Amino acid sequence: MTAKTEAKSEKDRVVIFDTTLRDGEQSPGASMTLEEKLQVAELLDEMGVDIIEAGFPIASNGDFEAVSEIAKVIKRAVVCGLARAATGDIDRAAEALAHAERRRIHTFIGTSPLHRQFQLQLDQDQVHERVISSVTRARNYTDDVEWSAMDATRTEHDFLCRVVEAAIRSGATTINIPDTVGYATPEEFRNLIVMIRERVPNADKVVFSTHCHDDLGLAVANSLAGVTGGARQIECTINGLGERAGNAALEEIVMALKVRGDVLPYFTNVEASMLMRASKLVSAVSAFPVQYNKAIVGKNAFAHESGIHQDGVLKNAQTYEIMTPESVGVKSTSLVMGKHSGRHAFREKLAELGFELGQNALEEAFKRFKDLADRKKHVFDEDIAALVEDEMAQSGEAIRLVALTVIAGTGGPQKAIVTLDVEGQHETREAVGDGPVDAMFKAIKSIAPHEATLQLYQVGAVTEESDAQAEVSVRLGEGDKIVTGRGADTDTMVASAKAYVSALNKLVTRRAKSKPEALKAG
Amino acid sequence: MTAKTEAKSEKDRVVIFDTTLRDGEQSPGASMTLEEKLQVAELLDEMGVDIIEAGFPIASNGDFEAVSEIAKVIKRAVVCGLARAATGDIDRAAEALAHAERRRIHTFIGTSPLHRQFQLQLDQDQVHERVISSVTRARNYTDDVEWSAMDATRTEHDFLCRVVEAAIRSGATTINIPDTVGYATPEEFRNLIVMIRERVPNADKVVFSTHCHDDLGLAVANSLAGVTGGARQIECTINGLGERAGNAALEEIVMALKVRGDVLPYFTNVEASMLMRASKLVSAVSAFPVQYNKAIVGKNAFAHESGIHQDGVLKNAQTYEIMTPESVGVKSTSLVMGKHSGRHAFREKLAELGFELGQNALEEAFKRFKDLADRKKHVFDEDIAALVEDEMAQSGEAIRLVALTVIAGTGGPQKAIVTLDVEGQHETREAVGDGPVDAMFKAIKSIAPHEATLQLYQVGAVTEESDAQAEVSVRLGEGDKIVTGRGADTDTMVASAKAYVSALNKLVTRRAKSKPEALKAG
Repeated sequence: MTAKTEAKSEKDRVVIFDTTLRDGEQSPGASMTLEEKLQVAELLDEMGVDIIEAGFPIASNGDFEAVSEIAKVIKRAVVCGLARAATGDIDRAAEALAHAERRRIHTFIGTSPLHRQFQLQLDQDQVHERVISSVTRARNYTDDVEWSAMDATRTEHDFLCRVVEAAIRSGATTINIPDTVGYATPEEFRNLIVMIRERVPNADKVVFSTHCHDDLGLAVANSLAGVTGGARQIECTINGLGERAGNAALEEIVMALKVRGDVLPYFTNVEASMLMRASKLVSAVSAFPVQYNKAIVGKNAFAHESGIHQDGVLKNAQTYEIMTPESVGVKSTSLVMGKHSGRHAFREKLAELGFELGQNALEEAFKRFKDLADRKKHVFDEDIAALVEDEMAQSGEAIRLVALTVIAGTGGPQKAIVTLDVEGQHETREAVGDGPVDAMFKAIKSIAPHEATLQLYQVGAVTEESDAQAEVSVRLGEGDKIVTGRGADTDTMVASAKAYVSALNKLVTRRAKSKPEALKAG
Repeated sequence: MTAKTEAKSEKDRVVIFDTTLRDGEQSPGASMTLEEKLQVAELLDEMGVDIIEAGFPIASNGDFEAVSEIAKVIKRAVVCGLARAATGDIDRAAEALAHAERRRIHTFIGTSPLHRQFQLQLDQDQVHERVISSVTRARNYTDDVEWSAMDATRTEHDFLCRVVEAAIRSGATTINIPDTVGYATPEEFRNLIVMIRERVPNADKVVFSTHCHDDLGLAVANSLAGVTGGARQIECTINGLGERAGNAALEEIVMALKVRGDVLPYFTNVEASMLMRASKLVSAVSAFPVQYNKAIVGKNAFAHESGIHQDGVLKNAQTYEIMTPESVGVKSTSLVMGKHSGRHAFREKLAELGFELGQNALEEAFKRFKDLADRKKHVFDEDIAALVEDEMAQSGEAIRLVALTVIAGTGGPQKAIVTLDVEGQHETREAVGDGPVDAMFKAIKSIAPHEATLQLYQVGAVTEESDAQAEVSVRLGEGDKIVTGRGADTDTMVASAKAYVSALNKLVTRRAKSKPEALKAG
């Protein structure tokens, strides 16, 4: 049932290239702040991801800054920046990666007839020429250059081999074969990798990579099939985040290779017991919920453990279980802290949960923890995490929630009285609305006017009691700028106001930073 | 890019066996009421599903009743009931299916060493004996008998062939090869089907079936691999609902076969344009959210359509699109009804949305629609659906919400004043709590006392405006009974109270119907 334990050689190692911060962040509504990206990058590094694609530096100042800051702090993993086949893109990527301990430039161009004709308006020879010039230029900056044939799975085999050969000759060290539109089937995808490796000269000198999208639900199977065909890098994302139906899910790739080492004799360096933590962090910062029946990290993935007591599982867990919940970092929720817990215990608990706070932030969080412990029967790990995340989200912002009163119910109209601190000035306004949330948002808008529309209002209970802290996400859109704010409180209405204010603050910060359209890769 | 249009023969048809109502409903927290099950069954029938597994009749009176009622109303699809390899199970399944137009009994037994030893405590000969006796008994009731080798993918090949042969000899017409624990890889699974079909006498006389779980994210790929190995039935569920990480998702199976008809030359009879409607219905009745990046039915699956205007998509949609949103029933949200819309238009809109209401219910819904149109700027299809579903959920219940006032905010303590109608008697109570939801639930509990604990409190915005109706789901657990209530209102607090009351009503109805443990199949 478990992987054979025979010694595994380096040639069987699959490099894990995480693109949560690039392809994942590109999915509409999933945008993250710099601080959130740094948090994710540090966790990915800690869990053993080999390459972190941190962004697309030319796409916006925000992307540039993210790649640049991540490059400065990550010491183990390779940090990668994306670039189209254009001088400006490659130079900008190199600039963002200047301070990286280990850097990779990833350059791509569409190779399929559809992309050549409609997106690029270039013929085969012109695309071939661009491959050579872009890879050559990237090699001036680093020895670690990845080249991608965008929409490779819909590209003519002869032309695909021609451009792969050109990329290798120009110095690319990793060749990525993306299934950009999620079109391939496993057998077909494996055969494609085999075909390229057989036909292209010096194919054995480079690493082949997969980048599969999940439009038909086959991203993980296709990635694994690619490995059996000779690929040794998989591009994937936490929770399968990414454009449209997303990318191959990192957690599924890692566990499939681990659990089925007998028929898939490959391995990764990822520490599986950190998968759940990574899933929760990415879900929180993107405000993309993970469905209950999601493999590995869904809350029901190991549900026979807690819910209905399965007869078979009680007799022998293996009857219905191919991996233990602990192996992917699922712990049972436990009562951890009470109102008598001191500062020291609190700090240790934070470290265990993966938070590092400065002295001021720690004091502030401790104060709020004591306050919470006074009001709430049980304080769970999740409550503390929510509180700290909320604290981090609210700190240093231009607009802050000072006070709120909401009157709701069947009597109507519902009313909200809001006091905000806008750059040091307190202002109070009252508004009625259709429902308390509507009233509250109207009152806030009358103090801090804006043109943004509400795109998502989402409430998730943190723990399973009605006095749990509610975590609210609010997504606002203004033109092409989309921001997500979060707030946590035992009072759903207060959490909603905080989330709205947090989104407004992000919008203000973002207004200057506009992403050009059409800067997307697959 | 599209499937070849050559005439397809019946031998290439893949039978779609939907088990949303059995394996799906078995997942902790997804339990549905009889009314909800009927709604789902009717939609499955309408969309062209071949076989509807409606439940496990011996498991509980509720399951028996569901199978029996579904058997009465479904005229096109085969209705199927599950039974262990025991006389009582099979007789009970036959009884539930008595009124079906077309009926199937599906009987199973664990065949792997782990299941034989730990779950069944039977040796190979004893299991073999049970297969013969159970299939033979089922054949007394119907010519359409399916037999499943539970945990087939971890069963010794020789023994698996021996029991499959016995099942065929005893009269089984469909042989299901489940990957009960989601352990298989595509190549391995195809080879397993090929091996069985090659070795077992008369294998060409029966239909082979797949039933794959998604624990490693491979359920869809494994199911399709099974078909290339010769299987012609796929067991699957809407949204991939099911035990743990769930089953193969019906919508992904159907679209993979449709979009990739060139390399997977098979077809199903499912009408793809109804997939989104089925997904939304199952998500609503199970209160299992669908993640944004879910293939086919996630809200981001076609996000380039609405969100960021993709340069390539504008030039030619095929650049990034392998199927159109319309092909799976994704419509853009449109403003449809206003305060001046009349009764006739309202009735037509309901029919278009798939609701049929009796005269009284229609009048009540129309009154609430006018009320909503007075209060809400835009009334969308989703608003009307939420309103009608809420109406259906609240009707004919013992406890009803009469009035509610909630005071929330930073000032605390939060307070709720609730009036309930309990079997005709009005009672009003006030409670304070930690947050308005806590206060409200405490007030309700003081009027209608119970021992249930809150397992889930979930709010989802119906449309993207702050005056949208909030749809709230509340899941309560009392012992092994788990119920989910829903409520919709523009006031989140009122929706929460309605959802809580709706769950309480279900709990009262359920108290008499207890499901025995250990009655699960995979």
